[in-house]
Order: sequence, then C-alpha cells, then structure tokens
Amino acid sequence: MRAGVAKRALAEATGVLERIAPSKPSQPVLAQIYLEALEAGLRLRATNGEVDLELLVPAEVEGSGATLVPAALFGQLVRALPAEYAELRLTPEGLELEGGSFATRIAVADPEAFPPFPEVPGPEGEVSAEALAKALARVRYAAAQEEYRAIFRGIQLELDETRLRAVATDGFRLALYDAEGGGALAAKLVLPARSADELVRLIKDARVPLKLAVGEGRLRVEGERFRTAIALMEGSFPDYQRVIPGQFVLEATLDAEALRQAIERLRVLADRQSQRVDLAFSEGTLELAAEGEYGRGREALAAEVRGEVPLVAAFNAHYLADALKGLKGPVRFKLSGAQTPSVLESEEEPGYLAVVVPLRV
Amino acid sequence: MRAGVAKRALAEATGVLERIAPSKPSQPVLAQIYLEALEAGLRLRATNGEVDLELLVPAEVEGSGATLVPAALFGQLVRALPAEYAELRLTPEGLELEGGSFATRIAVADPEAFPPFPEVPGPEGEVSAEALAKALARVRYAAAQEEYRAIFRGIQLELDETRLRAVATDGFRLALYDAEGGGALAAKLVLPARSADELVRLIKDARVPLKLAVGEGRLRVEGERFRTAIALMEGSFPDYQRVIPGQFVLEATLDAEALRQAIERLRVLADRQSQRVDLAFSEGTLELAAEGEYGRGREALAAEVRGEVPLVAAFNAHYLADALKGLKGPVRFKLSGAQTPSVLESEEEPGYLAVVVPLRV
Repeated sequence: MRAGVAKRALAEATGVLERIAPSKPSQPVLAQIYLEALEAGLRLRATNGEVDLELLVPAEVEGSGATLVPAALFGQLVRALPAEYAELRLTPEGLELEGGSFATRIAVADPEAFPPFPEVPGPEGEVSAEALAKALARVRYAAAQEEYRAIFRGIQLELDETRLRAVATDGFRLALYDAEGGGALAAKLVLPARSADELVRLIKDARVPLKLAVGEGRLRVEGERFRTAIALMEGSFPDYQRVIPGQFVLEATLDAEALRQAIERLRVLADRQSQRVDLAFSEGTLELAAEGEYGRGREALAAEVRGEVPLVAAFNAHYLADALKGLKGPVRFKLSGAQTPSVLESEEEPGYLAVVVPLRV
Repeated sequence: MRAGVAKRALAEATGVLERIAPSKPSQPVLAQIYLEALEAGLRLRATNGEVDLELLVPAEVEGSGATLVPAALFGQLVRALPAEYAELRLTPEGLELEGGSFATRIAVADPEAFPPFPEVPGPEGEVSAEALAKALARVRYAAAQEEYRAIFRGIQLELDETRLRAVATDGFRLALYDAEGGGALAAKLVLPARSADELVRLIKDARVPLKLAVGEGRLRVEGERFRTAIALMEGSFPDYQRVIPGQFVLEATLDAEALRQAIERLRVLADRQSQRVDLAFSEGTLELAAEGEYGRGREALAAEVRGEVPLVAAFNAHYLADALKGLKGPVRFKLSGAQTPSVLESEEEPGYLAVVVPLRV
C-alpha cells in the first residue's frame, strides 16, 4: 500500500483521533490508530471504549491494506513533517512516512487486534449539525463533574420528528436548550457529558445534516467524512420538568454580560464555600453584594424590574455566572420567590432556559 | 488617604507583584502587597524573601498612609473593575476601592509588619536594560532545574566597566552571552535562575539604562519606576572556561531554525531516556538520524561543511534543540571531536555561544 495525502488534512485527522485514543489505555491496543487504505482515501479510527470515531481523509491510494500505528507518535510526526504533502508506504518492516527531507519508519501492529466499529442497527434520522452542537454546548456546564448518581454527569437528548432538546442538571441547577432541526427519529437518550464534548468539537463545523441512529446502547452520528458511535448512559434521567417553575413573583430584564461581569467581580470577595452573592431587586435597579473573609463589595446595575419589589434573594455566584456565560443582549431573570427556583432566559437565544435555586439563608 | 489612579497602570503593577508574592507563603505577611501613598503616586511592594520588588504607579494622591492588602485578591479586584479609573480610600475600616458601578472594602493589615526594602550599600553602576535582559534570557535554558549542587541553578553575571556576560551551565551543557552595555561597576555574581526570570520580565521593556548596586548578598536594580533587590547565590560558579574548546576538527554552517526543526522531529522517535540523535557530517550535508522503540527516522540538511569529513557524533536532541531555540539565520556548529565538546555560534547574535557535549556511544 502507498498513499499520498495532504499533510494538513492528515494532521487534522490525527489531532482529533489523538484526543479519543486514551494516553493511558486499559488495553494497549486502544493507544493505537487504525489506518486503512481505501480507494477514496485513508480511513482512520480510534476508540476509548466509550467513543468510537472514524474519519476519512482524501488521499491518492495505490493498493490496499490496514495497520495500527501509535496514536500520539504518529500524530506528532505528521504535524512535524517539513512538507505540505506526505507519502505513506506500508511494508513488511513497518509504515514508512516521508515528507520533504524527512523520512521515518514506524513499528506497526496487527490491525485485526483493533475493535471493529460498533454496529448500531436502529432506525435512522437526520439532525442539523449546528442545532445539535449548539444545544449540547449550551447546557454542558450544568452537568455534574463528580456525583454519586452517574446520570447527573450526562446530557439528555430528546429528539422528535422536527425538534431536539438537550438538558443537563447536577441536582442544584439545570440548563435546557430547544432547537428546530430534528427529523424522522424520535428518541430520548443520555450522552456522557465528556463524550458530548467530543461530539460538539467534531460536528461544530459540519455543513450538511447529520445522520443519526440509536441502538445497542449507542448513538451513531454520521457526517460527510466521519462516523462516530457513542456509548449511552444507562438509568433514567431525573424528571426535570418538576423543577422548572411556571409562576413568578418578579421579572427583571438587564444586560446578560454586564450581570455576569458584576457577579464575577463580587465572586472574588464572596465566601469561598458558599459563593454567596445577594441580589436585591427594586424598581429600576438590581443591587448585588457579597461579603467574605477579605472584605465586602457591592454593585448596582440598571434593570427593568416588574413584580413584587423589593425582593432579596441569595445565589451561588458560580452557578449564576455559568448560566449567563456566553449570552449576549438582554436576559430575563424570573424569580418564583426568594427561596424557590428562578429562571434565566435569553432574548437572543429563545431556546435556552436555565434554572438556579437560591441559597437558603 | 485618597488616591485616583488609572485602572490599567494599577492592574499592570499588581499583576507583576502578584507573581512575586508567594501564594503559599512561609510567613503570612508575604502574601500581602505593601501599598503606600506618596506625593508622586502609589508605591507598591512585594517580596518572597528572594526577590523584593517595589513599583511606583502614578496617581493623584491626597494625604498619606500605608497599608497591606492581600496580593491575589487585590489584583483580581483591580483587573475586574468596570471603569478606566480607580479610586482608593484608606479608612479605619479598611481599604475602599471603587470604579464605575462597583465598590468594595477590603480588610487590611498593619504595614509595619511588612519587611522593609533591603539595604544594598555597595557602589553603583549602570547597565543597558536591553543588553541585560537579552543576556539573561539567552542563557537561561542551560541552568539546571534540579541539581545536587545548587549553584547550577544560577546564572553567573560578570560585569566590568564596559561589558557584561551571562553564563549558565547544568554540568552537561553551557550557554554564554557577551554584550556591550556595562558601565562603572565591576562585579561577578550568581543570580538564582528563577529570580533572573522575574528580572527579565521587569526590565525587558525598560527604555533607560538601569542602575545597579551589589552588596550584603544582594543585587539591586533600579529603573524609572521600579527597584528590585535580588538575593544572590552563595558558592563559587564552576570554572566554565575549561569546558569551551579552542580547537576544532570540523565546522558546519547551516540554517539554525531548519536544524532545530529537524532535531525536534527526530526527537519524537529518539530513545526516551538518552534522547539520542546521530549527526553525520559530510561534504555539503548534515544527515540526522534517530531510532527508538517505535521506529526510526532520518533527515538530510544542506550544510557548508569544512574540516575532517566524514564525522559522526551523537547528541542529546533536547540539549541541541534548547541551544538552537530562538536563533535566526546561520549557525556555526563546531566540533572538537566525536566525543569532546562542541560549540554552537550564531552569526546574527555574535555574543552567543553554546557548548554541548556529545553522548558517549
């Protein structure tokens, strides 16, 4: 087998696959990239047991063959090539890689030892890559890092024939994003948040709708030049609808970014443990205050406030800042009471909703 | 005391001082910044016991007074201020800091508890800031990270009335930089490499000559708006002149950056322990090769080679790459033999000289 391939395309592909291939694998074979010569180009594959990813890199190929190469080493060598074009040759002695003045021969392993791409036999649907990436990225922050119930480290994806919803919660806060762009497939599934991160990176620049299938405990996602299979989480996602309040006693509208920055400033002074920041809503103003071992601070922001003023509620500054991160334009801060869940909504991103629960003080 | 100060100037100063003030100090007072109102502005000071640094920030000051504020907290608050101008007020309750819509009061500590700026009574000289920064930055890589003899973690600075030299060595390699730009002070001293890093950051943009003094185990450096005192290392620096060969059997001239990149590429394949890369010099060519557990690689570079060809020598790729880093244009690679020290010199930076010793193979 002999293949000529653009260095840049190969370097991009190996970069993505290196992130999947674990650096300290439970089985040594998982530190490898599977490389196969097809008529259309090079097929490259990596897996960590949770996420299987296969990429197709356009190449001029003569002959056929497959092999395994160490992921990190191969990636480093490809990136370092002193030429725009790389030549690969699979010989009985190893895989030869050449570019410009540089030539190398890498020890290879038996391709039969690599896990095959998982079968996902379920029915297929389509989804907008942009909508899926946006929805997953928007709610990601609310998934738990470490939690006694593993399901809190997942993102629930709800698909019906026209829409999709992503939801994440760690039991203290919740984020939800609704988008148009589903199609044909109805499913409800929970992706590990880390696998969702990889999926977002993979699809965020995709220009065509993605094909989806669900089955055998996996979600398969296919784009123009990749397919991935993601192991789903077992167990049932919490009944989050109950947590979202429907009635409010106060609604304040103000600039999301200004609010986030004020919270970040006060966070510096807030009690390290509780991260408490006090929000006092009155007519035309939201006054924020925090106090900790080093001192105290306050800041007043202009806000359009409707409802039962004055109202004071305390929040975890970290949770509020997370919920506001990346939002542009006005945010609607809706309180159901001083001790009951509040909702944040963005006027520019109507699909987004965040729930934060006030601190008990 | 009341002071009005540009946020940007204050944020820059606190940023620099935060790097000095240790985050886990041996004495709690070292985590503080000393802040004093003078007629000309605010004097800010931090120390880690090794490096004392005092900065003057222009400010409009009413009254006088001094206090201590927690370095990291104060820095974060200043950077986060939502205004271009900051107001400071020292009251019996604490230090008030205001900017735009934000106001805070920080708990302060007794300024008497802070170590005074060290006395450095020695004779004074001048030095070019640019030359000193360049010399220290150029040789820094050759200082040891961890070593049984502490002196190897230092950089020797040799000053005479017109010139300065910086030298570093970890016992396996050496870097030396000679520059014009000394003046009036003759001294030989050893700075801890980490303190030298701070000094370089501090002086690299200075536009006027620096004042130097040496005494009481410290080097004092003064610029327009700062002064710093750096504790010197005790013990005698190795007699490095012996290591620099004077006679050579071969000299090769080639592009420094091309050589460094080839070495970095081969390093990926080299034996992890020895980092061995083989250099074979012949007429018109330098051929590099490396081999390790994952395979082998080679690369040929055009070079102007004079002397006893062919000659093969093995080097630590990491040391060679370090010695070449940042060099532009042609480098002269001078070998005294296959097993004896080699010298690298840059045509564009004639003050620079690096010694690397071949591996024994």
